Amino acid sequence: MQRFALRIEYHGGPFAGWQRQRDQPSVQGAIEAALAKLEPGPHTIAAAGRTDAGVHALGQVAHCDLEKEWEPFRLMEALNYHLKPAPVAITACARVESDWHARFSAVERRYLFRLVMRRAPVTHDKGLVWQVPHDLDVEAMRAGAAHLIGLHDFTTFRSAMCQSASPVKTLDAVEITRQDGPGGAELRFRLRARSFLHNQVRSIVGTLERVGRGAWTPEDVRRALVAADRAACGPVCPPEGLYLDAVGYPADPFGAD
Amino acid sequence: MQRFALRIEYHGGPFAGWQRQRDQPSVQGAIEAALAKLEPGPHTIAAAGRTDAGVHALGQVAHCDLEKEWEPFRLMEALNYHLKPAPVAITACARVESDWHARFSAVERRYLFRLVMRRAPVTHDKGLVWQVPHDLDVEAMRAGAAHLIGLHDFTTFRSAMCQSASPVKTLDAVEITRQDGPGGAELRFRLRARSFLHNQVRSIVGTLERVGRGAWTPEDVRRALVAADRAACGPVCPPEGLYLDAVGYPADPFGAD
Repeated sequence: MQRFALRIEYHGGPFAGWQRQRDQPSVQGAIEAALAKLEPGPHTIAAAGRTDAGVHALGQVAHCDLEKEWEPFRLMEALNYHLKPAPVAITACARVESDWHARFSAVERRYLFRLVMRRAPVTHDKGLVWQVPHDLDVEAMRAGAAHLIGLHDFTTFRSAMCQSASPVKTLDAVEITRQDGPGGAELRFRLRARSFLHNQVRSIVGTLERVGRGAWTPEDVRRALVAADRAACGPVCPPEGLYLDAVGYPADPFGAD
Repeated sequence: MQRFALRIEYHGGPFAGWQRQRDQPSVQGAIEAALAKLEPGPHTIAAAGRTDAGVHALGQVAHCDLEKEWEPFRLMEALNYHLKPAPVAITACARVESDWHARFSAVERRYLFRLVMRRAPVTHDKGLVWQVPHDLDVEAMRAGAAHLIGLHDFTTFRSAMCQSASPVKTLDAVEITRQDGPGGAELRFRLRARSFLHNQVRSIVGTLERVGRGAWTPEDVRRALVAADRAACGPVCPPEGLYLDAVGYPADPFGAD
Protein backbone atom coordinates (compact mmCIF):
# COMPACT_ATOMS: atom_id res chain seq x y z
CA MET A 1 0.00 0.00 0.00
CA GLN A 2 1.08 3.52 -0.71
CA ARG A 3 -0.10 6.46 1.41
CA PHE A 4 -0.97 9.82 -0.14
CA ALA A 5 -1.67 13.17 1.46
CA LEU A 6 -4.41 15.23 -0.18
CA ARG A 7 -5.01 18.95 0.24
CA ILE A 8 -8.73 19.61 -0.26
CA GLU A 9 -10.85 22.68 -0.94
CA TYR A 10 -14.63 22.48 -0.64
CA HIS A 11 -17.83 24.46 -0.43
CA GLY A 12 -19.58 23.21 2.69
CA GLY A 13 -23.06 24.26 1.55
CA PRO A 14 -24.31 21.00 0.03
CA PHE A 15 -22.77 18.74 2.66
CA ALA A 16 -23.84 17.49 6.08
CA GLY A 17 -20.19 18.02 7.05
CA TRP A 18 -16.85 16.30 6.49
CA GLN A 19 -17.72 13.01 8.14
CA ARG A 20 -19.28 10.15 6.18
CA GLN A 21 -22.94 9.55 7.04
CA ARG A 22 -25.29 6.86 5.99
CA ASP A 23 -27.98 8.90 4.25
CA GLN A 24 -26.56 12.38 3.74
CA PRO A 25 -23.93 13.80 1.42
CA SER A 26 -20.56 14.34 3.10
CA VAL A 27 -17.18 15.50 1.84
CA GLN A 28 -15.51 12.35 3.10
CA GLY A 29 -18.13 10.24 1.33
CA ALA A 30 -17.62 12.14 -1.94
CA ILE A 31 -13.86 11.62 -1.88
CA GLU A 32 -14.13 7.96 -0.87
CA ALA A 33 -16.57 7.39 -3.75
CA ALA A 34 -14.07 9.00 -6.16
CA LEU A 35 -11.31 6.74 -4.78
CA ALA A 36 -13.53 3.71 -5.36
CA LYS A 37 -13.61 4.64 -9.07
CA LEU A 38 -9.82 4.27 -9.10
CA GLU A 39 -9.37 1.18 -6.94
CA PRO A 40 -12.02 -1.16 -5.49
CA GLY A 41 -12.92 -0.11 -1.96
CA PRO A 42 -14.02 0.29 0.67
CA HIS A 43 -11.80 3.32 1.27
CA THR A 44 -11.59 5.10 4.60
CA ILE A 45 -9.79 8.40 4.63
CA ALA A 46 -8.78 10.43 7.67
CA ALA A 47 -8.81 14.24 7.81
CA ALA A 48 -7.03 16.81 9.95
CA GLY A 49 -10.29 18.53 10.91
CA ARG A 50 -13.82 17.14 10.83
CA THR A 51 -15.72 20.23 9.72
CA ASP A 52 -19.43 20.64 10.54
CA ALA A 53 -22.34 20.98 8.09
CA GLY A 54 -22.00 24.13 6.00
CA VAL A 55 -18.37 24.78 7.00
CA HIS A 56 -15.95 25.30 4.09
CA ALA A 57 -12.32 24.39 3.57
CA LEU A 58 -9.53 26.07 1.69
CA GLY A 59 -6.82 23.71 2.86
CA GLN A 60 -8.26 20.62 4.56
CA VAL A 61 -5.73 17.76 4.58
CA ALA A 62 -6.55 14.05 4.47
CA HIS A 63 -4.68 10.87 3.66
CA CYS A 64 -5.65 7.76 1.72
CA ASP A 65 -4.03 4.38 1.06
CA LEU A 66 -3.89 2.91 -2.44
CA GLU A 67 -2.51 -0.30 -3.94
CA LYS A 68 -1.20 1.25 -7.13
CA GLU A 69 1.90 3.42 -7.18
CA TRP A 70 0.09 6.50 -8.43
CA GLU A 71 2.04 9.44 -9.71
CA PRO A 72 0.66 12.15 -7.33
CA PHE A 73 -0.27 14.62 -10.07
CA ARG A 74 -2.17 11.94 -11.99
CA LEU A 75 -3.96 10.82 -8.82
CA MET A 76 -5.05 14.42 -8.15
CA GLU A 77 -6.33 14.77 -11.72
CA ALA A 78 -8.19 11.46 -11.58
CA LEU A 79 -9.85 12.31 -8.25
CA ASN A 80 -10.91 15.76 -9.48
CA TYR A 81 -12.38 14.15 -12.59
CA HIS A 82 -14.48 11.75 -10.53
CA LEU A 83 -15.46 14.37 -7.92
CA LYS A 84 -17.26 16.52 -10.50
CA PRO A 85 -19.74 18.17 -10.21
CA ALA A 86 -19.46 18.20 -6.38
CA PRO A 87 -17.81 21.42 -5.13
CA VAL A 88 -14.79 19.51 -3.84
CA ALA A 89 -11.34 19.86 -5.36
CA ILE A 90 -8.01 18.22 -4.60
CA THR A 91 -5.52 21.09 -4.89
CA ALA A 92 -2.36 19.17 -3.97
CA CYS A 93 -1.31 15.55 -3.65
CA ALA A 94 1.90 13.97 -2.35
CA ARG A 95 3.28 10.59 -1.40
CA VAL A 96 3.90 10.26 2.33
CA GLU A 97 5.36 7.63 4.66
CA SER A 98 2.99 4.90 5.80
CA ASP A 99 3.06 6.20 9.39
CA TRP A 100 2.17 9.77 8.37
CA HIS A 101 -1.33 10.66 9.54
CA ALA A 102 -3.33 13.69 8.37
CA ARG A 103 -4.85 14.13 11.82
CA PHE A 104 -2.27 12.85 14.29
CA SER A 105 0.78 14.26 12.52
CA ALA A 106 -0.76 17.76 12.36
CA VAL A 107 0.75 20.37 14.68
CA GLU A 108 -1.35 23.38 13.72
CA ARG A 109 -4.81 24.24 12.43
CA ARG A 110 -5.71 27.62 10.96
CA TYR A 111 -9.28 28.76 10.60
CA LEU A 112 -10.62 31.78 8.72
CA PHE A 113 -13.99 33.33 9.51
CA ARG A 114 -15.52 35.85 7.09
CA LEU A 115 -18.09 38.30 8.45
CA VAL A 116 -19.71 40.96 6.24
CA MET A 117 -21.22 44.05 7.86
CA ARG A 118 -23.96 45.58 5.72
CA ARG A 119 -27.71 45.83 5.44
CA ALA A 120 -28.16 44.96 1.75
CA PRO A 121 -28.21 41.19 1.17
CA VAL A 122 -24.95 39.74 -0.11
CA THR A 123 -25.06 38.43 -3.69
CA HIS A 124 -21.76 36.88 -4.84
CA ASP A 125 -20.83 35.80 -1.31
CA LYS A 126 -24.16 34.25 -0.37
CA GLY A 127 -23.42 31.11 1.70
CA LEU A 128 -19.76 32.11 1.98
CA VAL A 129 -19.93 34.73 4.75
CA TRP A 130 -21.86 35.53 7.91
CA GLN A 131 -23.74 38.75 7.33
CA VAL A 132 -24.62 41.11 10.18
CA PRO A 133 -26.67 44.24 9.47
CA HIS A 134 -24.73 46.58 11.79
CA ASP A 135 -21.23 47.94 12.09
CA LEU A 136 -18.89 46.34 14.63
CA ASP A 137 -16.12 47.90 16.72
CA VAL A 138 -12.98 46.02 15.66
CA GLU A 139 -10.80 47.48 18.42
CA ALA A 140 -13.21 46.26 21.09
CA MET A 141 -13.29 42.81 19.47
CA ARG A 142 -9.49 42.67 19.43
CA ALA A 143 -9.43 43.63 23.12
CA GLY A 144 -11.95 40.88 23.87
CA ALA A 145 -10.02 38.32 21.81
CA ALA A 146 -6.79 39.13 23.64
CA HIS A 147 -8.21 37.50 26.79
CA LEU A 148 -8.49 34.18 24.93
CA ILE A 149 -4.90 33.91 23.72
CA GLY A 150 -2.73 31.35 25.46
CA LEU A 151 -3.38 28.21 27.52
CA HIS A 152 -6.89 28.11 28.97
CA ASP A 153 -9.73 25.84 29.95
CA PHE A 154 -12.07 26.55 27.01
CA THR A 155 -15.12 24.78 28.46
CA THR A 156 -17.19 27.94 27.84
CA PHE A 157 -16.36 27.84 24.11
CA ARG A 158 -16.90 24.13 23.60
CA SER A 159 -19.94 22.32 22.21
CA ALA A 160 -21.69 19.87 24.50
CA MET A 161 -21.00 17.27 21.79
CA CYS A 162 -17.24 17.83 21.85
CA GLN A 163 -15.31 14.55 22.05
CA SER A 164 -11.96 16.05 23.00
CA ALA A 165 -10.38 14.46 26.09
CA SER A 166 -9.64 17.83 27.66
CA PRO A 167 -11.08 21.35 27.38
CA VAL A 168 -7.60 22.80 28.01
CA LYS A 169 -6.08 24.14 24.79
CA THR A 170 -3.59 26.75 23.72
CA LEU A 171 -4.99 29.37 21.35
CA ASP A 172 -2.02 30.90 19.54
CA ALA A 173 -3.65 33.77 17.69
CA VAL A 174 -6.90 35.56 16.89
CA GLU A 175 -6.23 38.20 14.23
CA ILE A 176 -9.04 40.43 13.03
CA THR A 177 -8.64 42.53 9.88
CA ARG A 178 -11.13 44.86 8.23
CA GLN A 179 -11.42 45.37 4.49
CA ASP A 180 -13.74 48.03 3.09
CA GLY A 181 -15.50 47.36 -0.21
CA PRO A 182 -18.08 49.21 -2.30
CA GLY A 183 -20.99 47.29 -0.80
CA GLY A 184 -19.88 47.11 2.82
CA ALA A 185 -17.00 46.11 5.04
CA GLU A 186 -15.73 42.61 5.66
CA LEU A 187 -14.03 41.36 8.82
CA ARG A 188 -11.68 38.41 8.57
CA PHE A 189 -10.92 36.48 11.74
CA ARG A 190 -7.84 34.25 11.58
CA LEU A 191 -7.47 31.76 14.44
CA ARG A 192 -4.50 29.54 14.96
CA ALA A 193 -3.94 26.65 17.41
CA ARG A 194 -2.47 23.17 17.58
CA SER A 195 -6.04 21.90 17.78
CA PHE A 196 -9.51 23.25 18.46
CA LEU A 197 -12.50 22.02 20.44
CA HIS A 198 -15.80 21.33 18.70
CA ASN A 199 -17.53 24.65 17.85
CA GLN A 200 -14.68 26.61 19.45
CA VAL A 201 -14.15 28.99 16.52
CA ARG A 202 -17.85 29.67 16.01
CA SER A 203 -18.35 30.14 19.78
CA ILE A 204 -15.47 32.64 19.90
CA VAL A 205 -16.60 34.60 16.82
CA GLY A 206 -20.22 34.66 18.05
CA THR A 207 -19.04 36.00 21.41
CA LEU A 208 -16.75 38.60 19.81
CA GLU A 209 -19.62 39.82 17.65
CA ARG A 210 -21.46 40.67 20.89
CA VAL A 211 -18.44 42.70 21.94
CA GLY A 212 -18.24 44.37 18.52
CA ARG A 213 -21.76 45.68 18.77
CA GLY A 214 -21.34 46.83 22.35
CA ALA A 215 -23.63 44.29 24.05
CA TRP A 216 -20.59 42.88 25.87
CA THR A 217 -17.44 44.60 27.07
CA PRO A 218 -14.04 43.07 26.26
CA GLU A 219 -13.78 42.24 29.99
CA ASP A 220 -16.99 40.17 29.69
CA VAL A 221 -15.05 37.78 27.42
CA ARG A 222 -12.53 37.17 30.19
CA ARG A 223 -15.35 36.60 32.68
CA ALA A 224 -17.03 34.12 30.31
CA LEU A 225 -13.73 32.26 29.88
CA VAL A 226 -12.97 31.93 33.59
CA ALA A 227 -16.55 30.85 34.30
CA ALA A 228 -15.65 27.60 32.45
CA ASP A 229 -19.37 27.16 31.84
CA ARG A 230 -20.99 26.59 28.45
CA ALA A 231 -23.93 28.77 29.51
CA ALA A 232 -21.58 31.76 29.81
CA CYS A 233 -20.80 31.68 26.07
CA GLY A 234 -22.19 34.13 23.52
CA PRO A 235 -24.29 32.65 20.71
CA VAL A 236 -22.53 30.22 18.37
CA CYS A 237 -22.38 31.96 15.01
CA PRO A 238 -23.56 30.29 11.77
CA PRO A 239 -21.26 27.91 9.87
CA GLU A 240 -21.27 29.56 6.44
CA GLY A 241 -18.54 32.09 7.27
CA LEU A 242 -16.11 29.44 8.56
CA TYR A 243 -13.22 27.98 6.55
CA LEU A 244 -10.60 25.43 7.56
CA ASP A 245 -7.80 27.47 6.05
CA ALA A 246 -4.67 25.38 6.49
CA VAL A 247 -3.14 22.53 8.45
CA GLY A 248 0.47 22.60 9.58
CA TYR A 249 2.87 19.63 9.83
CA PRO A 250 6.46 19.40 11.08
CA ALA A 251 7.42 19.08 7.39
CA ASP A 252 5.00 20.30 4.70
CA PRO A 253 4.04 17.12 2.79
CA PHE A 254 3.22 19.19 -0.31
CA GLY A 255 6.52 21.09 -0.38
CA ALA A 256 6.55 24.61 -1.74
CA ASP A 257 4.05 24.99 -4.57
CA MET B 1 -41.55 63.19 -9.72
CA GLN B 2 -38.36 62.62 -7.78
CA ARG B 3 -35.28 61.00 -9.32
CA PHE B 4 -33.10 58.57 -7.38
CA ALA B 5 -29.69 57.11 -8.19
CA LEU B 6 -29.21 53.46 -7.20
CA ARG B 7 -25.92 51.64 -6.82
CA ILE B 8 -26.48 47.97 -7.59
CA GLU B 9 -24.59 44.75 -6.96
CA TYR B 10 -25.66 41.53 -8.70
CA HIS B 11 -24.67 38.00 -9.55
CA GLY B 12 -25.09 37.73 -13.32
CA GLY B 13 -25.49 33.94 -13.33
CA PRO B 14 -29.29 33.64 -13.28
CA PHE B 15 -29.91 36.56 -15.65
CA ALA B 16 -30.04 36.98 -19.42
CA GLY B 17 -28.22 40.27 -18.79
CA TRP B 18 -29.05 43.73 -17.51
CA GLN B 19 -31.62 44.62 -20.14
CA ARG B 20 -35.30 43.80 -19.74
CA GLN B 21 -36.48 40.99 -22.02
CA ARG B 22 -39.90 39.65 -22.67
CA ASP B 23 -39.44 36.04 -21.60
CA GLN B 24 -36.19 35.87 -19.70
CA PRO B 25 -35.07 37.06 -16.28
CA SER B 26 -33.09 40.28 -16.37
CA VAL B 27 -31.61 42.52 -13.68
CA GLN B 28 -33.50 45.53 -15.01
CA GLY B 29 -36.73 43.55 -14.96
CA ALA B 30 -36.12 42.41 -11.37
CA ILE B 31 -35.56 45.97 -10.14
CA GLU B 32 -38.52 47.35 -12.12
CA ALA B 33 -40.73 44.65 -10.61
CA ALA B 34 -39.54 45.65 -7.12
CA LEU B 35 -40.29 49.32 -7.91
CA ALA B 36 -43.81 48.32 -9.02
CA LYS B 37 -44.38 46.94 -5.50
CA LEU B 38 -43.71 50.45 -4.16
CA GLU B 39 -45.56 52.57 -6.73
CA PRO B 40 -47.78 51.49 -9.64
CA GLY B 41 -45.75 51.18 -12.83
CA PRO B 42 -44.72 50.74 -15.49
CA HIS B 43 -41.22 51.74 -14.40
CA THR B 44 -38.33 52.12 -16.80
CA ILE B 45 -34.92 52.50 -15.28
CA ALA B 46 -31.71 53.43 -17.09
CA ALA B 47 -28.28 51.99 -16.23
CA ALA B 48 -24.72 53.17 -16.79
CA GLY B 49 -23.70 49.89 -18.41
CA ARG B 50 -25.90 47.24 -20.00
CA THR B 51 -24.09 44.10 -18.92
CA ASP B 52 -24.40 40.86 -20.91
CA ALA B 53 -25.79 37.53 -19.73
CA GLY B 54 -23.67 36.09 -16.92
CA VAL B 55 -21.76 39.33 -16.28
CA HIS B 56 -21.73 40.53 -12.67
CA ALA B 57 -21.77 43.97 -11.09
CA LEU B 58 -20.23 45.32 -7.92
CA GLY B 59 -21.17 48.93 -8.58
CA GLN B 60 -23.67 49.25 -11.42
CA VAL B 61 -25.53 52.57 -11.27
CA ALA B 62 -29.09 53.22 -12.46
CA HIS B 63 -31.73 55.85 -11.86
CA CYS B 64 -35.47 55.67 -11.33
CA ASP B 65 -38.29 58.20 -11.02
CA LEU B 66 -40.87 57.97 -8.24
CA GLU B 67 -43.91 60.03 -7.25
CA LYS B 68 -43.38 59.77 -3.52
CA GLU B 69 -40.63 61.70 -1.76
CA TRP B 70 -38.86 58.61 -0.49
CA GLU B 71 -36.20 58.91 2.15
CA PRO B 72 -33.28 57.27 0.23
CA PHE B 73 -32.35 54.80 2.97
CA ARG B 74 -35.95 53.63 3.28
CA LEU B 75 -36.22 53.27 -0.51
CA MET B 76 -33.08 51.13 -0.55
CA GLU B 77 -34.43 48.91 2.24
CA ALA B 78 -37.82 48.54 0.55
CA LEU B 79 -36.26 47.60 -2.80
CA ASN B 80 -33.94 45.06 -1.18
CA TYR B 81 -36.92 43.54 0.59
CA HIS B 82 -38.85 43.10 -2.66
CA LEU B 83 -35.80 41.94 -4.64
CA LYS B 84 -35.34 38.86 -2.45
CA PRO B 85 -34.42 36.11 -3.22
CA ALA B 86 -32.89 37.34 -6.49
CA PRO B 87 -29.12 37.92 -6.13
CA VAL B 88 -29.53 41.65 -6.69
CA ALA B 89 -28.86 44.22 -3.94
CA ILE B 90 -29.16 47.99 -3.80
CA THR B 91 -26.05 49.05 -1.88
CA ALA B 92 -26.57 52.84 -2.03
CA CYS B 93 -29.41 55.19 -2.89
CA ALA B 94 -29.47 58.98 -3.25
CA ARG B 95 -31.77 61.75 -4.47
CA VAL B 96 -30.49 63.39 -7.67
CA GLU B 97 -31.59 66.29 -9.90
CA SER B 98 -34.20 65.49 -12.51
CA ASP B 99 -31.69 65.98 -15.34
CA TRP B 100 -29.13 63.61 -13.81
CA HIS B 101 -28.82 60.45 -15.93
CA ALA B 102 -27.11 57.24 -14.82
CA ARG B 103 -25.83 56.62 -18.35
CA PHE B 104 -25.36 60.03 -19.93
CA SER B 105 -23.96 61.76 -16.83
CA ALA B 106 -21.32 59.04 -16.36
CA VAL B 107 -17.73 60.00 -17.18
CA GLU B 108 -15.96 56.76 -16.31
CA ARG B 109 -16.60 53.02 -16.21
CA ARG B 110 -14.39 50.56 -14.36
CA TYR B 111 -14.46 46.86 -15.06
CA LEU B 112 -12.85 44.06 -13.10
CA PHE B 113 -12.06 40.68 -14.63
CA ARG B 114 -11.14 37.74 -12.41
CA LEU B 115 -9.12 34.88 -13.91
CA VAL B 116 -8.02 31.87 -11.87
CA MET B 117 -5.06 29.79 -13.06
CA ARG B 118 -5.21 26.22 -11.79
CA ARG B 119 -6.10 22.73 -12.86
CA ALA B 120 -8.37 21.69 -9.96
CA PRO B 121 -11.96 22.91 -10.46
CA VAL B 122 -12.85 26.02 -8.48
CA THR B 123 -15.37 25.46 -5.68
CA HIS B 124 -16.29 28.67 -3.83
CA ASP B 125 -15.71 30.84 -6.91
CA LYS B 126 -17.64 28.72 -9.39
CA GLY B 127 -19.45 31.08 -11.79
CA LEU B 128 -17.48 34.03 -10.41
CA VAL B 129 -14.16 33.62 -12.25
CA TRP B 130 -12.79 32.43 -15.58
CA GLN B 131 -10.65 29.39 -14.92
CA VAL B 132 -7.71 28.47 -17.16
CA PRO B 133 -5.75 25.29 -16.46
CA HIS B 134 -2.29 26.73 -17.20
CA ASP B 135 -0.03 29.43 -15.80
CA LEU B 136 0.12 32.77 -17.61
CA ASP B 137 3.01 35.19 -18.04
CA VAL B 138 1.78 38.40 -16.42
CA GLU B 139 4.69 40.51 -17.67
CA ALA B 140 3.96 39.53 -21.28
CA MET B 141 0.26 40.32 -20.78
CA ARG B 142 1.14 43.74 -19.36
CA ALA B 143 3.38 44.41 -22.36
CA GLY B 144 0.56 43.40 -24.70
CA ALA B 145 -1.98 45.53 -22.83
CA ALA B 146 0.28 48.58 -23.04
CA HIS B 147 -0.38 48.74 -26.80
CA LEU B 148 -4.09 49.27 -26.12
CA ILE B 149 -3.81 52.24 -23.76
CA GLY B 150 -4.89 55.59 -25.19
CA LEU B 151 -7.08 56.72 -28.09
CA HIS B 152 -7.57 54.00 -30.72
CA ASP B 153 -9.97 52.57 -33.24
CA PHE B 154 -11.05 49.47 -31.28
CA THR B 155 -12.91 47.81 -34.18
CA THR B 156 -10.88 44.62 -33.58
CA PHE B 157 -12.13 44.41 -29.97
CA ARG B 158 -15.77 45.18 -30.69
CA SER B 159 -18.70 42.81 -31.05
CA ALA B 160 -20.50 42.77 -34.39
CA MET B 161 -23.63 43.66 -32.39
CA CYS B 162 -22.10 46.82 -30.90
CA GLN B 163 -24.44 49.82 -31.22
CA SER B 164 -21.84 52.49 -30.44
CA ALA B 165 -21.70 55.29 -33.02
CA SER B 166 -17.92 55.10 -33.27
CA PRO B 167 -15.28 52.43 -32.63
CA VAL B 168 -12.84 55.12 -31.51
CA LYS B 169 -12.43 55.14 -27.75
CA THR B 170 -9.84 56.10 -25.16
CA LEU B 171 -8.76 53.24 -22.90
CA ASP B 172 -7.30 54.84 -19.77
CA ALA B 173 -5.86 51.83 -17.97
CA VAL B 174 -5.44 48.06 -17.99
CA GLU B 175 -3.89 46.98 -14.70
CA ILE B 176 -3.11 43.32 -14.06
CA THR B 177 -2.32 42.08 -10.57
CA ARG B 178 -1.53 38.56 -9.40
CA GLN B 179 -2.56 37.13 -6.07
CA ASP B 180 -1.33 33.70 -4.97
CA GLY B 181 -3.61 31.53 -2.87
CA PRO B 182 -3.42 28.00 -1.49
CA GLY B 183 -5.36 26.51 -4.40
CA GLY B 184 -3.87 28.52 -7.27
CA ALA B 185 -3.17 32.04 -8.43
CA GLU B 186 -5.71 34.65 -9.44
CA LEU B 187 -5.19 37.44 -11.95
CA ARG B 188 -7.28 40.58 -11.62
CA PHE B 189 -7.60 42.81 -14.66
CA ARG B 190 -8.83 46.34 -13.97
CA LEU B 191 -9.87 48.35 -17.03
CA ARG B 192 -10.88 51.98 -16.97
CA ALA B 193 -12.37 54.19 -19.71
CA ARG B 194 -15.02 56.85 -20.22
CA SER B 195 -17.01 54.19 -22.07
CA PHE B 196 -16.49 50.78 -23.59
CA LEU B 197 -17.65 49.09 -26.79
CA HIS B 198 -19.79 45.97 -26.64
CA ASN B 199 -17.62 42.96 -25.66
CA GLN B 200 -14.52 45.17 -25.51
CA VAL B 201 -13.34 43.98 -22.09
CA ARG B 202 -13.92 40.31 -22.84
CA SER B 203 -12.23 40.66 -26.24
CA ILE B 204 -9.20 42.31 -24.62
CA VAL B 205 -8.90 39.77 -21.79
CA GLY B 206 -9.35 36.86 -24.22
CA THR B 207 -6.59 38.27 -26.41
CA LEU B 208 -4.27 38.91 -23.47
CA GLU B 209 -4.77 35.34 -22.28
CA ARG B 210 -3.27 34.23 -25.62
CA VAL B 211 -0.28 36.44 -24.89
CA GLY B 212 -0.01 35.10 -21.35
CA ARG B 213 0.30 31.53 -22.54
CA GLY B 214 2.77 32.40 -25.27
CA ALA B 215 0.54 31.77 -28.31
CA TRP B 216 0.78 35.48 -29.17
CA THR B 217 3.60 37.95 -28.62
CA PRO B 218 2.83 41.32 -27.02
CA GLU B 219 3.53 42.84 -30.46
CA ASP B 220 0.74 40.68 -31.94
CA VAL B 221 -1.72 42.70 -29.82
CA ARG B 222 -0.56 45.90 -31.52
CA ARG B 223 -0.89 44.25 -34.94
CA ALA B 224 -4.43 43.08 -34.10
CA LEU B 225 -5.36 46.59 -32.98
CA VAL B 226 -4.08 48.37 -36.09
CA ALA B 227 -5.73 45.77 -38.34
CA ALA B 228 -9.05 47.29 -37.21
CA ASP B 229 -10.67 43.98 -38.15
CA ARG B 230 -12.88 41.89 -35.88
CA ALA B 231 -11.33 38.72 -37.37
CA ALA B 232 -7.92 39.76 -35.96
CA CYS B 233 -9.17 39.52 -32.37
CA GLY B 234 -8.31 36.71 -29.99
CA PRO B 235 -11.21 34.67 -28.61
CA VAL B 236 -13.79 36.55 -26.54
CA CYS B 237 -13.45 35.15 -23.01
CA PRO B 238 -16.46 33.89 -21.02
CA PRO B 239 -18.67 36.33 -19.09
CA GLU B 240 -18.49 34.81 -15.62
CA GLY B 241 -15.21 36.51 -14.67
CA LEU B 242 -16.43 40.00 -15.61
CA TYR B 243 -17.72 42.60 -13.13
CA LEU B 244 -18.91 46.15 -13.73
CA ASP B 245 -16.91 47.47 -10.79
CA ALA B 246 -17.76 51.17 -10.57
CA VAL B 247 -19.17 54.12 -12.50
CA GLY B 248 -17.72 57.60 -12.15
CA TYR B 249 -19.64 60.91 -12.26
CA PRO B 250 -18.43 64.51 -12.09
CA ALA B 251 -19.85 64.53 -8.55
CA ASP B 252 -20.39 61.22 -6.72
CA PRO B 253 -24.18 61.06 -6.21
CA PHE B 254 -23.73 58.74 -3.22
CA GLY B 255 -21.22 60.96 -1.42
CA ALA B 256 -18.50 59.40 0.66
CA ASP B 257 -19.74 56.20 2.28
